[in-house]
Amino acid sequence: MQELSPTARTRIRRMPHRAVYDRATLHAILDEGIVCHMGFVVGEQPYVIPTAYAREGETLYLHGSSASRSLKTLGSGLTVCVTVTLIDGLVLSRAIFTHSIDYRSVVVLGTAAPVLDPAEKLRVLHALSEQLVPGRWKDVRPPNPKELKATLVLAMPLKEVSVKVRNGPPIDEDEDLDSSAWAGELPMRTEYLDPIDDPRLSPGITAPDYVINYRRPGSKPAEPMVGTNNGSSQSE
Amino acid sequence: MQELSPTARTRIRRMPHRAVYDRATLHAILDEGIVCHMGFVVGEQPYVIPTAYAREGETLYLHGSSASRSLKTLGSGLTVCVTVTLIDGLVLSRAIFTHSIDYRSVVVLGTAAPVLDPAEKLRVLHALSEQLVPGRWKDVRPPNPKELKATLVLAMPLKEVSVKVRNGPPIDEDEDLDSSAWAGELPMRTEYLDPIDDPRLSPGITAPDYVINYRRPGSKPAEPMVGTNNGSSQSE
Repeated sequence: MQELSPTARTRIRRMPHRAVYDRATLHAILDEGIVCHMGFVVGEQPYVIPTAYAREGETLYLHGSSASRSLKTLGSGLTVCVTVTLIDGLVLSRAIFTHSIDYRSVVVLGTAAPVLDPAEKLRVLHALSEQLVPGRWKDVRPPNPKELKATLVLAMPLKEVSVKVRNGPPIDEDEDLDSSAWAGELPMRTEYLDPIDDPRLSPGITAPDYVINYRRPGSKPAEPMVGTNNGSSQSE
Repeated sequence: MQELSPTARTRIRRMPHRAVYDRATLHAILDEGIVCHMGFVVGEQPYVIPTAYAREGETLYLHGSSASRSLKTLGSGLTVCVTVTLIDGLVLSRAIFTHSIDYRSVVVLGTAAPVLDPAEKLRVLHALSEQLVPGRWKDVRPPNPKELKATLVLAMPLKEVSVKVRNGPPIDEDEDLDSSAWAGELPMRTEYLDPIDDPRLSPGITAPDYVINYRRPGSKPAEPMVGTNNGSSQSE
C-alpha cells in the first residue's frame, strides 16, 4: 500500500500513535465526508469556510461560487489548508482528563488553483456531483455556459497531508480503574431521514433509489479501522 | 431579541438572504455542535484543526493540550477564525447548478487568549464537560493539578460573528419545473448508537441515562428555524 510521506509541517508530533500513513485511509475519510473546512489568509486574518469538495485520484477539488469573496481571493492560487473531520463518537473514561472523541481527520496543506478550462470544469463538476449524490447527474439538467462560468472550482494536490484517527475504548490510568463510573464509547453516525418532496413536485414523481437508500461510502457504525491505533491516555 | 452587529469583515455579502442576525440562532448552533474548526496562521500558512469547544454567555472556549504545537502557537493570543458547521441535509433540485446543502454555520473572528488562572481554568473545563456530556463531571475524577497544567483553554469573545442558515425546498428556475426528475430534500441528523462498554469495566456497572439518552441540544429532524430564510437560486 502506498504510504504518505509526511513533511516537517505535516508530521504529527502530538500523539504520533494517532497518525495514519496510508493512502487508503486518507481516501476513505475524504470520500465519506460531505463538506471540508477550507482555511485561507486575507491580510493577517485567517478565514475558515465550509464548502463541498470531491477527491479524484490524488487531487482534491473544492467547489464554490465565482461570486464568493472568499473563493475569489483563492482564485489566483492562494495558500490554503483544507480539513475534513468525521466524528465517530464520544469516549467516556473515569477521569475528566482522559475523556476524548472518536474521530477521523485529514489536513491538506498546499495551493488551491482554479480550474479554468470549461470542459475540464464540467468534468470536475460531474465528479463533485457523483461524490455527493451518485447517480444524480444523469437525471437533471447539466450546467449551461452561464452557470458554468458562475461556478468556481479549485484544485489542489493531495501531497502534503496528515491523517489522524482516534478510536477504541477509553484509556484510563490504572489507579482510576476502581471508579464506580461507567466507562466506554458512545458511537455516532449520520442518519438519513425520509426524503421530503419539493412542494412544487409534479404528481407521480417519486424519490429515486439513490435518494431513498442514500449513504456515504464507508459510513458504518464504529468499526475498528485498519492501520490505526487505539486510544490514548491524553484528553484531546 | 439581541441582534448581531456585523462588521465589514463579517457582513455577509454573498447570499445575504442566508445571513441570520439574532443571537438566539448563533447560540443554538454553537450549543449543538461538538467540534469547531479553528484556523490560525503560522508564517504565511493557514492551519485548520478540529477541536472541542464550549460557549458560555458571549464567550467561546476552545480546548486542547498544552503539548500541542498548534495550540501553543495560539497561547500568546493569536488571531483566529473559528467555524462551526452543522449539516442538515442535501437539497436536490432539477438542475445541477441549483443543488445545495442544508446547513447552519457560525464563523467567529477574533483573538483567542489562554485562560491561565487555575481556578478559572477548572471552571471552564467544567463548562466544556457539561456542554459535551451534561452530568458527566460529577461522576468521574476531576483534573489534578498536573492534568490541569497540561490542558490549554483558550477564550475568545463572540463579538465579530457571522451566522448563515440554508434550509427549505430546492429553488429551481421556472423553466426547469417540467423536469421528470424528483426534487426535494434528504434530511440528515446525527444518530447515537448503543453505548459500548469499556472492556475493563467492572461487572455490574451500566451506562447512565445521560449516555443512553444522549442527544445534542436542539438536534431534531429538519425543522424550520426561526428567523431564517429559505432556499436560494444559487448552487452554493
